[in-house]
Amino acid sequence: MDFGSDNVSGVHDAILEALREANTGTAVAYGHDEWTARAVGRLRDVFECDLSAYLVVTGTAANALALAACCPPHGAVVCHHEAHITTDECGAPEMFTGGAKLMGVRGAAGKLTTAGVAGMLATLGRGEHEQRPSVLSLSQATELGTVYTAAEVADLAELARAHRLHVHMDGARFANAVVRLQCTPAEITWKSGVDVLSFGATKNGALGVEAVVFFDPGLTDDFLYRRKRAGHLVSKGRYLGAQMLAYLHDDLWRTNARHANAMADRLAAGLRLVPGVRLPLPVEANEVFAIVPRAVHETLRAEGARYLEWPGEGPGTDGPAADETFIRLLTSFRSTEAEVRAFLAAAATAAGQPVAPASAD
Amino acid sequence: MDFGSDNVSGVHDAILEALREANTGTAVAYGHDEWTARAVGRLRDVFECDLSAYLVVTGTAANALALAACCPPHGAVVCHHEAHITTDECGAPEMFTGGAKLMGVRGAAGKLTTAGVAGMLATLGRGEHEQRPSVLSLSQATELGTVYTAAEVADLAELARAHRLHVHMDGARFANAVVRLQCTPAEITWKSGVDVLSFGATKNGALGVEAVVFFDPGLTDDFLYRRKRAGHLVSKGRYLGAQMLAYLHDDLWRTNARHANAMADRLAAGLRLVPGVRLPLPVEANEVFAIVPRAVHETLRAEGARYLEWPGEGPGTDGPAADETFIRLLTSFRSTEAEVRAFLAAAATAAGQPVAPASAD
Amino acid sequence: MDFGSDNVSGVHDAILEALREANTGTAVAYGHDEWTARAVGRLRDVFECDLSAYLVVTGTAANALALAACCPPHGAVVCHHEAHITTDECGAPEMFTGGAKLMGVRGAAGKLTTAGVAGMLATLGRGEHEQRPSVLSLSQATELGTVYTAAEVADLAELARAHRLHVHMDGARFANAVVRLQCTPAEITWKSGVDVLSFGATKNGALGVEAVVFFDPGLTDDFLYRRKRAGHLVSKGRYLGAQMLAYLHDDLWRTNARHANAMADRLAAGLRLVPGVRLPLPVEANEVFAIVPRAVHETLRAEGARYLEWPGEGPGTDGPAADETFIRLLTSFRSTEAEVRAFLAAAATAAGQPVAPASAD
Amino acid sequence: MDFGSDNVSGVHDAILEALREANTGTAVAYGHDEWTARAVGRLRDVFECDLSAYLVVTGTAANALALAACCPPHGAVVCHHEAHITTDECGAPEMFTGGAKLMGVRGAAGKLTTAGVAGMLATLGRGEHEQRPSVLSLSQATELGTVYTAAEVADLAELARAHRLHVHMDGARFANAVVRLQCTPAEITWKSGVDVLSFGATKNGALGVEAVVFFDPGLTDDFLYRRKRAGHLVSKGRYLGAQMLAYLHDDLWRTNARHANAMADRLAAGLRLVPGVRLPLPVEANEVFAIVPRAVHETLRAEGARYLEWPGEGPGTDGPAADETFIRLLTSFRSTEAEVRAFLAAAATAAGQPVAPASAD
Repeated sequence: MDFGSDNVSGVHDAILEALREANTGTAVAYGHDEWTARAVGRLRDVFECDLSAYLVVTGTAANALALAACCPPHGAVVCHHEAHITTDECGAPEMFTGGAKLMGVRGAAGKLTTAGVAGMLATLGRGEHEQRPSVLSLSQATELGTVYTAAEVADLAELARAHRLHVHMDGARFANAVVRLQCTPAEITWKSGVDVLSFGATKNGALGVEAVVFFDPGLTDDFLYRRKRAGHLVSKGRYLGAQMLAYLHDDLWRTNARHANAMADRLAAGLRLVPGVRLPLPVEANEVFAIVPRAVHETLRAEGARYLEWPGEGPGTDGPAADETFIRLLTSFRSTEAEVRAFLAAAATAAGQPVAPASAD
Repeated sequence: MDFGSDNVSGVHDAILEALREANTGTAVAYGHDEWTARAVGRLRDVFECDLSAYLVVTGTAANALALAACCPPHGAVVCHHEAHITTDECGAPEMFTGGAKLMGVRGAAGKLTTAGVAGMLATLGRGEHEQRPSVLSLSQATELGTVYTAAEVADLAELARAHRLHVHMDGARFANAVVRLQCTPAEITWKSGVDVLSFGATKNGALGVEAVVFFDPGLTDDFLYRRKRAGHLVSKGRYLGAQMLAYLHDDLWRTNARHANAMADRLAAGLRLVPGVRLPLPVEANEVFAIVPRAVHETLRAEGARYLEWPGEGPGTDGPAADETFIRLLTSFRSTEAEVRAFLAAAATAAGQPVAPASAD
Repeated sequence: MDFGSDNVSGVHDAILEALREANTGTAVAYGHDEWTARAVGRLRDVFECDLSAYLVVTGTAANALALAACCPPHGAVVCHHEAHITTDECGAPEMFTGGAKLMGVRGAAGKLTTAGVAGMLATLGRGEHEQRPSVLSLSQATELGTVYTAAEVADLAELARAHRLHVHMDGARFANAVVRLQCTPAEITWKSGVDVLSFGATKNGALGVEAVVFFDPGLTDDFLYRRKRAGHLVSKGRYLGAQMLAYLHDDLWRTNARHANAMADRLAAGLRLVPGVRLPLPVEANEVFAIVPRAVHETLRAEGARYLEWPGEGPGTDGPAADETFIRLLTSFRSTEAEVRAFLAAAATAAGQPVAPASAD
Repeated sequence: MDFGSDNVSGVHDAILEALREANTGTAVAYGHDEWTARAVGRLRDVFECDLSAYLVVTGTAANALALAACCPPHGAVVCHHEAHITTDECGAPEMFTGGAKLMGVRGAAGKLTTAGVAGMLATLGRGEHEQRPSVLSLSQATELGTVYTAAEVADLAELARAHRLHVHMDGARFANAVVRLQCTPAEITWKSGVDVLSFGATKNGALGVEAVVFFDPGLTDDFLYRRKRAGHLVSKGRYLGAQMLAYLHDDLWRTNARHANAMADRLAAGLRLVPGVRLPLPVEANEVFAIVPRAVHETLRAEGARYLEWPGEGPGTDGPAADETFIRLLTSFRSTEAEVRAFLAAAATAAGQPVAPASAD
């Protein structure tokens, strides 16, 4: 019953196997290997365009490098005030950009709106006394488990462009959004105005690989230098390439995400039936947010269930009461129906409900 | 015949197997897993002291993070003028320290001397008009394939301490130095005054893991923050821990290094017999530097031999003539005697020598 | 009728005269001159303690250098969300600290409260995933023309210390606060827990000089280096020292501030009598904020009156209506009663009021 | 007898007077004043082109801001290894560029040569493993008191351009070079390929003002932001504009420099006659370098003469012997013939020579 993070799950067997297969002979180091070249080719197929892509090991590196490509040191990144880049990366965007400011905008359910972004931009305009907004960053799926439709991305990107901002998408859970939206990767990225995407694989089954995908060729001039000086040019690059190839092979990335989302849906459906529990946010990816009675929470913890007490604010007007706890449950490609059932049964029991495990299905 | 770099070799089977073994169940993310804890414990055994150690994926990250822990933005790092940190890391030390200067000192065979360092420090002393030397960084083995004896390290560290400099050791090829010197890891590090070591594993058989090892506990306060904001906190940390455990298990790290060094010795012995070839530097690790007739070089390249034309200066007074090329050959845990023989035969043939492969043994 | 900023006023005659007097003979450069030494001595008298002080030319430099002395690159500065350091310095604190985050907290009338600060700190606590709050910065007087009492400063500083934060005070308008509070400089600084103060002189009559005043001797280690590398070590330092000496001589700094405050009081008193105008904020320094009918505003502008349309939000619940404008008027040591009377008369006329200039007195 | 630095001299009376004249009425702050606008206009006249210019207070700021406009964080600045920017600014260029490397090239008499620069560039070329040379920086006059002819500047700039480097000129003593070369300012700057000039005034009679002068309009996009975030946007900008206007008025800048140079020439002529003293460098600006017997040096110091013991190396092959001292004497607009005579007399006496003051004339 470990729903603490999609990071706690290990590596998908197909990806580990790909590492083994790549482990023969010598290969040119520092990303000039064939595996990496083929992985970039596959990303071009998946996104149906002539993109540039660079592999790194962590999502924080992917985001920070992508932002640094778009934002000068005296610039600013406009993002949701609960965006991972501003709350969870210890200032990596600040470090990689050389000191840019992250300007947080509020928005319901973890999502930016054009009204919110426009309102914030309207408070600025005094020239060099302020940092200059240079990028709009969206998380897809968001940190609160919601997704932007293609139309929403397009509207935000249009607004951004009107203010001469580049558009970055933090796609740590991009796969979960794609399968939920039943859209193509292209539709919610370059076709909607996204310039650069952090395309995550680690949370969805890889050992450690993310692609920084540029749809705007004007932004890649310095990328190789920036990656190297950040210590993110891996010497034995073939093992990043091999991971990404396996991740994209046979739609593994979509299959994994579809499974994780389905497990989240089941968790959500079951939790809605537990007395005293409510789900204040839509479940649109592999994240379930719930407000649960504190007693239920404590019983679950005592029984070994793992999940996060969410440190941020509740979703808009519906926050936890004094005797309630706001929790986040994450599912992954490895979460099982049995785990979900066990968790729901434990929650029901804790809430004093006669166990009805079938209700979770 | 690929002697281009120790990076071109793949991963040792035992290390890949360790990844597979670690891939069961969930594990706490971000370095709080058991594998990492055990790896740090093993490093304590290996170094016979109560050190702090942190795992990262690349050597550049290890060096830059280690230096940032010792050197303020207005500080300076004293190092050999051909040190990897100043010639090959695209300014990562500058980025991670926030702008420190790397002050290069010349020294024969890639090695710093106390006279050289003292001479450079003597030119300084005008207070805040200059960046303040804060760290002395040694590469062990050096970029020119030589090693510092424990006494040499101790002398340099004593000089450093007298000037209030911390001592960093870039141990990307630390294993090769240890087995050559037939010393304990402790003897050439903390027992000789080293404060922080970049303990490399990637070049010597790992997929991608390096440990930043602090012997001075006063330097670790900020390390976790610095690693995270540099994007070098890996989410699925167990796979770094597992690599390091396998690397240290059963002396694999020494075994690999011993093999690589032996192959370098054979290469060197054979090359010395090739007409027109000379080795201007001692071979003390897994690197062989040779000055070869340009015609020989061109023939070898045409036959597919891989190695580096060394961009730096030749070793002191003995540089390549106009019709000569200065090359570097690197061996690894995977280099074979057959490869070495084939290379030597090709070199001999190219030099017009009747082939005598036995001479290489 | 120029109330645009206290920066638009020139230099007080006594301070210009001091430059002339200092202009004889040679003087050691780079801050080692006698004028600077004497100015630091005078600051010790004024603050009644053994402080360290360093002179720079701009307030932004003073603030950014002070913050950099307290806050590591992975740290955070907690401040009011309308603080000058976060809205008006184009990221200087981010640049000088090497990438720290400014965490804005809301609070009525431009003032932080312990509840607000504690509430924000309570959302944090996940270790290296977040930037570590390292400094609390207060503006005295605030950007909204209000002041903190000694008790308020002490409460905030106590909270800060309990969380291991240093306390910085942005005293660009410190003099205005001191004379309003009728306190000693010591009472609202080190006696209340302030570690470092940006002691402004430029807005209050100097040509360009600010002192970074450290009450905590543990923070000054690197200051000389940080100032130099930021290009803020002035070569002909005697002219900074001479300005500061003249500023502190014969209580000029208090006299100037007292005058500016008095002019603000008159402006405020007069504006309260103008139909349709209201003052949503207390006037506690040399700043008057008013909500005026847009028509009045336009007439005043047409007649050449200068002041700022305030870009930030209105004060709490009382914001400007659609046909109103939120303006800021600043007075200085050079503002005259005639100017104030002229402005009030113009405002009254614009508002359709029979002129009654006496009411302003 | 203070020849310690041109900084020890005070402010020229005409410049102080200009401050007084500017001190009437209010003026728009932050560089939008009329004085600044007129000063930029005058710089256009002086340089005979449509340049952009920005005023700052210190030479270090001017240099670091100019370099940051030309050099990305992963770039490198090629300069003489004794250039002020690399030896005397405590890493300001590193801070302002965000971590670029200063690559020092040796060259006789403080001057870069095309052979030296080309040789250094030839050692590079391995892509993102190295910082990318982005700027060539020349000091005019150099730190060793020599000057580049227009032809020399043009040759170096042509080489730079062929390698896609911008060209920066550190003109802290630009006036001294111009009057020595008897050329126009345009001839040794934009007509010879210089993109950006730090045009110094402080050392030559101003209180504190330098202009960053861009001849390449493509480099100025971000300048206002960079200056502000470095704390170098002065609020009462009119006093910078007024200084620069006075400096350029009636050729004051050339007159001052001509005087300083003449005093240096006299010093040099006199010193050449002192037994045991030799001048290893040509005197081409207002700096005199001399190798003097240590006993002479000690006597001079005892008599209160001020000058610098030069910390750098001697000029090429002619260095000081063990009983000699290498000293630097600087003259300024305020140095007097009497001071020069007194110094020469003291030197002659110390050297055991019968005094012959007339010989100095």
